[in-house]
Amino acid sequence: MGYPVSDEAGTKETDIVNLPSIHIQADEQHSVYKVGVPPRRKLAKEFTETVKETFFSDDPLRPFKDQPRSKKIVLGLRALFPILDWGRYYNFNKFKGDIMAGLTIASLCIPQDIGYSKLANLDPQYGLYSSFVPPLIYAIMGSSRDIAIGPVAVVSLLLGTLLQNEIDPKNKFEYRRLAFTATFFAGVTQAVLGFLRLGFLIDFLSHAAIVGFMGGAAITIALQQLKGFLGIKTFTKKTDIINVMESVFKNVHHGWNWQTILIGSVFLAFLLFTKYIGKKKRSLFWVSAIAPLISVVLSTFFVYITRADKHGVQIVKKIKKGINPTSVNEIHFSGSYALKGFRIGSVAGMIALTEAVAIGRTFASMKDYQIDGNKEMVALGVMNIVGSMTSCYVATGSFSRSAVNYMAGCNTSVSNIVMSLVVLLTLLVITPLFKYTPNAILAAIIINAVMGLIDYNAAILIWKIDKFDFIACMGAFLGVVFYSVEIGLLIAVSISFAKILLQVTRPRTAILGNLPRTNIYRNIEQYPEATRVPGVMVVRVDSAIYFSNSNYVKERILRWLTDEEEQLKQKDLPRIQFLIVELSPVTDIDTSGIHALEELFNSLQKREIQLVLSNPGRAVMDKLVASKFTEIIGQDKIFLTVGEAVMTCAPKALEEA
Amino acid sequence: MGYPVSDEAGTKETDIVNLPSIHIQADEQHSVYKVGVPPRRKLAKEFTETVKETFFSDDPLRPFKDQPRSKKIVLGLRALFPILDWGRYYNFNKFKGDIMAGLTIASLCIPQDIGYSKLANLDPQYGLYSSFVPPLIYAIMGSSRDIAIGPVAVVSLLLGTLLQNEIDPKNKFEYRRLAFTATFFAGVTQAVLGFLRLGFLIDFLSHAAIVGFMGGAAITIALQQLKGFLGIKTFTKKTDIINVMESVFKNVHHGWNWQTILIGSVFLAFLLFTKYIGKKKRSLFWVSAIAPLISVVLSTFFVYITRADKHGVQIVKKIKKGINPTSVNEIHFSGSYALKGFRIGSVAGMIALTEAVAIGRTFASMKDYQIDGNKEMVALGVMNIVGSMTSCYVATGSFSRSAVNYMAGCNTSVSNIVMSLVVLLTLLVITPLFKYTPNAILAAIIINAVMGLIDYNAAILIWKIDKFDFIACMGAFLGVVFYSVEIGLLIAVSISFAKILLQVTRPRTAILGNLPRTNIYRNIEQYPEATRVPGVMVVRVDSAIYFSNSNYVKERILRWLTDEEEQLKQKDLPRIQFLIVELSPVTDIDTSGIHALEELFNSLQKREIQLVLSNPGRAVMDKLVASKFTEIIGQDKIFLTVGEAVMTCAPKALEEA
Repeated sequence: MGYPVSDEAGTKETDIVNLPSIHIQADEQHSVYKVGVPPRRKLAKEFTETVKETFFSDDPLRPFKDQPRSKKIVLGLRALFPILDWGRYYNFNKFKGDIMAGLTIASLCIPQDIGYSKLANLDPQYGLYSSFVPPLIYAIMGSSRDIAIGPVAVVSLLLGTLLQNEIDPKNKFEYRRLAFTATFFAGVTQAVLGFLRLGFLIDFLSHAAIVGFMGGAAITIALQQLKGFLGIKTFTKKTDIINVMESVFKNVHHGWNWQTILIGSVFLAFLLFTKYIGKKKRSLFWVSAIAPLISVVLSTFFVYITRADKHGVQIVKKIKKGINPTSVNEIHFSGSYALKGFRIGSVAGMIALTEAVAIGRTFASMKDYQIDGNKEMVALGVMNIVGSMTSCYVATGSFSRSAVNYMAGCNTSVSNIVMSLVVLLTLLVITPLFKYTPNAILAAIIINAVMGLIDYNAAILIWKIDKFDFIACMGAFLGVVFYSVEIGLLIAVSISFAKILLQVTRPRTAILGNLPRTNIYRNIEQYPEATRVPGVMVVRVDSAIYFSNSNYVKERILRWLTDEEEQLKQKDLPRIQFLIVELSPVTDIDTSGIHALEELFNSLQKREIQLVLSNPGRAVMDKLVASKFTEIIGQDKIFLTVGEAVMTCAPKALEEA
Repeated sequence: MGYPVSDEAGTKETDIVNLPSIHIQADEQHSVYKVGVPPRRKLAKEFTETVKETFFSDDPLRPFKDQPRSKKIVLGLRALFPILDWGRYYNFNKFKGDIMAGLTIASLCIPQDIGYSKLANLDPQYGLYSSFVPPLIYAIMGSSRDIAIGPVAVVSLLLGTLLQNEIDPKNKFEYRRLAFTATFFAGVTQAVLGFLRLGFLIDFLSHAAIVGFMGGAAITIALQQLKGFLGIKTFTKKTDIINVMESVFKNVHHGWNWQTILIGSVFLAFLLFTKYIGKKKRSLFWVSAIAPLISVVLSTFFVYITRADKHGVQIVKKIKKGINPTSVNEIHFSGSYALKGFRIGSVAGMIALTEAVAIGRTFASMKDYQIDGNKEMVALGVMNIVGSMTSCYVATGSFSRSAVNYMAGCNTSVSNIVMSLVVLLTLLVITPLFKYTPNAILAAIIINAVMGLIDYNAAILIWKIDKFDFIACMGAFLGVVFYSVEIGLLIAVSISFAKILLQVTRPRTAILGNLPRTNIYRNIEQYPEATRVPGVMVVRVDSAIYFSNSNYVKERILRWLTDEEEQLKQKDLPRIQFLIVELSPVTDIDTSGIHALEELFNSLQKREIQLVLSNPGRAVMDKLVASKFTEIIGQDKIFLTVGEAVMTCAPKALEEA
């Protein structure tokens, strides 16, 4: 296309003007469009900035800026105890919402707690203990308004599995000691991670991996419930599907108890039905929320009058009455058990964190308020440390109960306080009434609860969006179901890491073409209409160039070139004279990267091809200058845009194009 | 700025035309400029493509494409034995270069080998053995034309340190067996890595880390030479500077031998001087190349006539005559020693690889020929496997000798054959003559050789370019010097990984501004002249959005927004209505990333700000569509360029600007 005469401008065709206009830029007003070389930052400044972005990216100290000392202390306390912050604006209207929500989640948590403590191989009361103290602590220190604190299925299962690898649960006392020790160290891990601003570490467990892990754990937990649901007496200690199914069918003839199955199925049906109603009509969600408590009451009463327990229906028997006894003296603070406790606790703590933070973030974004992940971790950590000293095991945010809490219209973590008070009453007064509660009901309640953790829609979406994520998801899922929770977790983490490494080793590169009648250049695979400019090849590198990929990038570019040249030879078209490397996506480069560029430059010189760079970013430009590479290829070989570069290098070619 | 009247076009001011012109695009011909949604690729295709890019990025099978079977076999053999390839074009001219180079490196390697075998705690002849067989194998299978094969200082030291942790070198036989076992597994590791196309794994040791590690190793090796150089009899087994210096000065009064020191210093001075000459006048490099051999001859003769050995000058004493005996029966193929051998061998093998590949790449890019890293690894692996069975220890490419080989004008790996033949003669005939060679000379030669490994210029450059790299460099260096080679290596690797993790957790984000009189938007930090458009905020995300950073990215963007809004309030300027996220550098996104975008979208809706995307790449667009996110925000909110987006969102604002 030739230079348009001026009067073409402003008409539909004006795009053509872009070319000469940019051309003019390149020639006459180049200075205006030179690639910016920012003033080099002081080393100290650069360093502090990096540290700040890495550990204090959320700038937690901003409110403290230029404040008087006294004010700083107040702010500090508020930061540590958010209740001092929102407490001042608390009013009766908010309380109405909170008390309703609190009562609802209480009715939900009591039966769940009793069941979950079984998963952790602990006596029922420990589940209730863990729903009394931790929520109180969290209410004071936590920053999420919707999370419901207490024991959760997955962590209970994980803790149970890890603990019984060390001590036989039959040895109640020692087992319990290790449980508290693990809980203590779980809390320490959480608090330390938060305090050291290492919150981002939990981000290394990808969403996909979590979906898979949770789903697998849910299945495993549901399978564990078959023991209580079918009334089987001798059940495997293993959690993998194979073993569980074996011991289920080994007992099919003389192990299953039909009364138990009957009661269980009836109430499971009831629970599922109410859940269905709750889903159908959001205003009736409370039906599904209180259904568990109702079924506990009914079934307990039923068993009591029919004395079904005499016919082999297993019942809870006894829950110790009274509030949490202290357990400080039971924690191992040193010795080999302390070490084991630490290993188990740190794993359980991390998973608990992942769950809590995920919940916190979800609801925070639904109500659009920010929560500080690191502060959250400190809160959860302190909560578990205190918990471990008051006979609680690892508590965290529960998916199911938090959702109910949210739907019941909670406004602040006061709903947690309400819940824990109800639990307190339960512990003081009504625990004896649970004596005749059939295990089958608890099983049914847990099965019903964990079903919510199986998010097949998410799995399908993951499949649609990103196949690699799906592999991670299924890996974690199958790992948990067929081996154990630890293995599943291990698989999830390793696949997540593998993905990161792959990402940094094999970045994408793309050939760019010119979009007709513009000076815009885009990936010719994405924009088939984009045309190449004869004699010029434009390659875009789609990642920071680091030691882990610098050689690959260099060799990949050279291969693009070789392929192209072969084709050109066949069609005997003019050979390539300019290789333009579009650096817009290249956000950073290190010494290895600079080396690769130098090597690329050398190889190109041998082939009599000119290397041209387009739009290096701030960090890249810094380093190109520092390494004198700008001087090697020449300042005039670095352009602001690909369009401009092509324009200056091969104006003729463009005209012919 | 107002719309220009047409006659402004083509003048210096025409850039202004870009705006309305793009504007027209946006309105009337939008279709042309829609962001391309490439046809979704078949899963299988996508998968194979990924695998291919990851493991066969160099497309090694291309020449085999559509060839007759017989030809394929021939090509296969040539691929496996490159000598069949270049051998056919070999001629006398090339041979002249090769024989000169071969003789030169032979004269260099013989004294080095004797010294290096000491570093590995092996008898002198094993160094010579390792310069006979391996070069022959490599000459047949290797693809680098300039590399000089044989034992090298760093690997010898590493192997020596690792081996003596397992077996006391005094127990010669068992020690040697383990050495061969390690060599065998080093070869296996190398070959397997190459065969499985896992060559990219060695890229995870960053250039900076290697510089530091090599420098540290060089210092350590030089320090080890003080034993021979000062004629000290009782010397520490440790390699860290503290211990070495201790045992040096403990012996200062009654351990140093002045005759040894005299001889050593004289020849060290001679060597350094010749090296200086070689550097000054490239045509005289051969002086420095043969200097070591000359000094060996002279010093040996001198000691022989003066019988200085009677005055405490330590000499080599005896080198076993004859060629490599077989050692197959000495290798542990099973048992605990096999395991130890594997652990040691894999580490030594990896380091050897790193060194060889680095050399190969350097010279390949200097002479502009490609070498296939993976094929290279197979060659080196086979070479060491065969070596381990013929009494050789781990051999690889030597920096110093390869450089000499290159300067001496080698053309093909025939120079290696020549060298190994000379070594053969040495083994058969003249080894007895080395009897009187003083250890001090070997020490001097090694000190002189390893000095070349201390690349302080590179270190300075690294400091200038990238501070983080410098930390990795110094970490490795200090680790080797003050602790041990393994620790140094460990530090190097961990820092390298830490960097990768940092890169993927904390990507950069930037606020973009409009470059006056263009429709180009750039980082306002890099281009101070760039101006913001009122009511619009443009944020660029500088990395793929993955689970590891999705939350950070979301929160960072929201923080940019909050900061901005605070400022606007203070200056009571119009509030922000559009948040444009520039996705050009975002090369990929996963499910977590999509989630983050959805959460961002929700938060923005709460604040009545419209989310607009600009230039999503191929992979990103694929996934935005797959996840229906395009429908959530609306196709019309996705633009090809920031300019276009601003134009359509806030034309008025732009005019006022």
